[in-house]
Amino acid sequence: MANAPLFIGIDLGGTNIKIGLIDSLGNIHDRCSIPTLESEGPQNAIQRCSDAIDQLQYPSATARSDVVAVGLATPGTMDIPGGMLLNPPNLPHWCDFPVRDALAKQIGLHVEFANDGTAAAYGEFWIGSGQEMSSMIFLTLGTGVGCGIIIGETLVQGVNSHGAECGHLVVDYSDSARICGCGQPGHLEAYASATGVVKRTADGLAAHRDSTLNGRLEQDERLSAKMVSEEAAKGDVFAREIVLETAMYLGRGIADLIHTIDPSGVVLGGAMNFGGPRSSLGMDFLNEIRRVARGKIFPVLAERTRIDFARLGSVAGMVGAAGIARQFQA
Amino acid sequence: MANAPLFIGIDLGGTNIKIGLIDSLGNIHDRCSIPTLESEGPQNAIQRCSDAIDQLQYPSATARSDVVAVGLATPGTMDIPGGMLLNPPNLPHWCDFPVRDALAKQIGLHVEFANDGTAAAYGEFWIGSGQEMSSMIFLTLGTGVGCGIIIGETLVQGVNSHGAECGHLVVDYSDSARICGCGQPGHLEAYASATGVVKRTADGLAAHRDSTLNGRLEQDERLSAKMVSEEAAKGDVFAREIVLETAMYLGRGIADLIHTIDPSGVVLGGAMNFGGPRSSLGMDFLNEIRRVARGKIFPVLAERTRIDFARLGSVAGMVGAAGIARQFQA
Repeated sequence: MANAPLFIGIDLGGTNIKIGLIDSLGNIHDRCSIPTLESEGPQNAIQRCSDAIDQLQYPSATARSDVVAVGLATPGTMDIPGGMLLNPPNLPHWCDFPVRDALAKQIGLHVEFANDGTAAAYGEFWIGSGQEMSSMIFLTLGTGVGCGIIIGETLVQGVNSHGAECGHLVVDYSDSARICGCGQPGHLEAYASATGVVKRTADGLAAHRDSTLNGRLEQDERLSAKMVSEEAAKGDVFAREIVLETAMYLGRGIADLIHTIDPSGVVLGGAMNFGGPRSSLGMDFLNEIRRVARGKIFPVLAERTRIDFARLGSVAGMVGAAGIARQFQA
Repeated sequence: MANAPLFIGIDLGGTNIKIGLIDSLGNIHDRCSIPTLESEGPQNAIQRCSDAIDQLQYPSATARSDVVAVGLATPGTMDIPGGMLLNPPNLPHWCDFPVRDALAKQIGLHVEFANDGTAAAYGEFWIGSGQEMSSMIFLTLGTGVGCGIIIGETLVQGVNSHGAECGHLVVDYSDSARICGCGQPGHLEAYASATGVVKRTADGLAAHRDSTLNGRLEQDERLSAKMVSEEAAKGDVFAREIVLETAMYLGRGIADLIHTIDPSGVVLGGAMNFGGPRSSLGMDFLNEIRRVARGKIFPVLAERTRIDFARLGSVAGMVGAAGIARQFQA
């Protein structure tokens, strides 16, 4: 049986839109994924979102009328209080679009608007790895490095809707620091994103002729973080060095974040987890992050602050958007 | 006329205890400072606090009975929810002392307990440089580098009462990084505290024989951040380099903080401000901090995030403690 009231969480990305029907305990009762069809523009996608919401299977004794609010998560740049997408690199046809109010008008429901990093953080905080935490920092490792910070009831969204841009913490002040996608040197994202891992690996390969990565590249495979993960898991020394060095940079950023926020814990999500909690390499990666971060912070914080993998996988943003709608609806 | 209700703010330091009678708009109606007499222990000091509160001049038509709550700010380490001082380096005879409840019992009033960095931040946020901000990061430059972070209604006190330890952000990852008082390399406090400035200056003097600082040291003066400030103001090139390099390290830490929190602004308090807003050197110091920090952050944040000197001076903690009592009393 569903725990009414019901909420809808929408995680709107550049490729897909995930839509979930979620109850007040975080149970997912139905969900679907529709293509964003970015170039068709926002009004088209909002119409299809509305259709998809109508076609969700409502649990017995409930109906669409039991949905009290919707949470909408999108990538930035955005104006969260204004409900606007501003200039989102992954949604180039959606610039300066009042996405919150357009969706609310189309579906006739209150819509809470959040950054996708914040929403994923809230999902983990609500029913995932952060369930027992009172404050949490969430880092998501993918093409970039995303972040969300939750302190008690407060989502750190930022006065300019740029809160928790922790992919842009500086982890290297040297003259040879890597340049981030944003143009600045030394940012965490330039080291610990999939993009950063690929670049660091590519730069190091010439000096590591014996790496098994070379064999795969000679067969015209494209270098990827997944390939690094696979070869590291098989024992390739250079690939493993890349994995542990990635952990070292993350440990630096996380140490600074722990000294700034003193949260209950730090949760690591995203696909670039080198196998995650069920693999030996993934646990080596996590333990190296823990070792480096804890070696840099006050002993009491090193002892008490949890550093864990996320639990919800790719639905974190969708679930978290629904959770934000539940918690923060007017 | 006073704006009842009234509040008392207490800023308890290792040397002095500042006590202020403050109304709901932040006006200070009376204040005093009594010696901590640290080695006499906490119960002695609490008795003298109570006596001092009795002797405050209450504005006409008000009396001690109009005081509805007290804010108490102390240095750490502490357990804020538990109201305990744990192991405060500046109050060695106060270890494991239930300071909040002991004070409440003595004076018969509700006591809100806060870290002194947070209290000073709240003072500036309430009626100082942060008055028009909706979120604020406060850095205080003194013997160490203290910090307080306020996001809307939320004081970032940390789950282990270690929130906003931003003096321990890493601003130098090189092998030659300076060692912080906490034992770790590269922390902001090792560069941008008065202690850090003195050490950096002492280390550089041998290579700067022409610096006018040498003359003063030859007269048996002790090297201090104030001396560096004075000689820099008089035009000594090396002293000025130290000032601007201090600003550079602060700019690094502040850039990371802005990317993490996206606050309305960053406010710089504390006595080590190289003359502060009314001096040309102080403004050069502030402008270099702004230049470095803004050069490292997203353009929209560089444009919008204020970086300013504090306004309240040494009463910020006392006023902020009263403000916290006003805002957060049960």
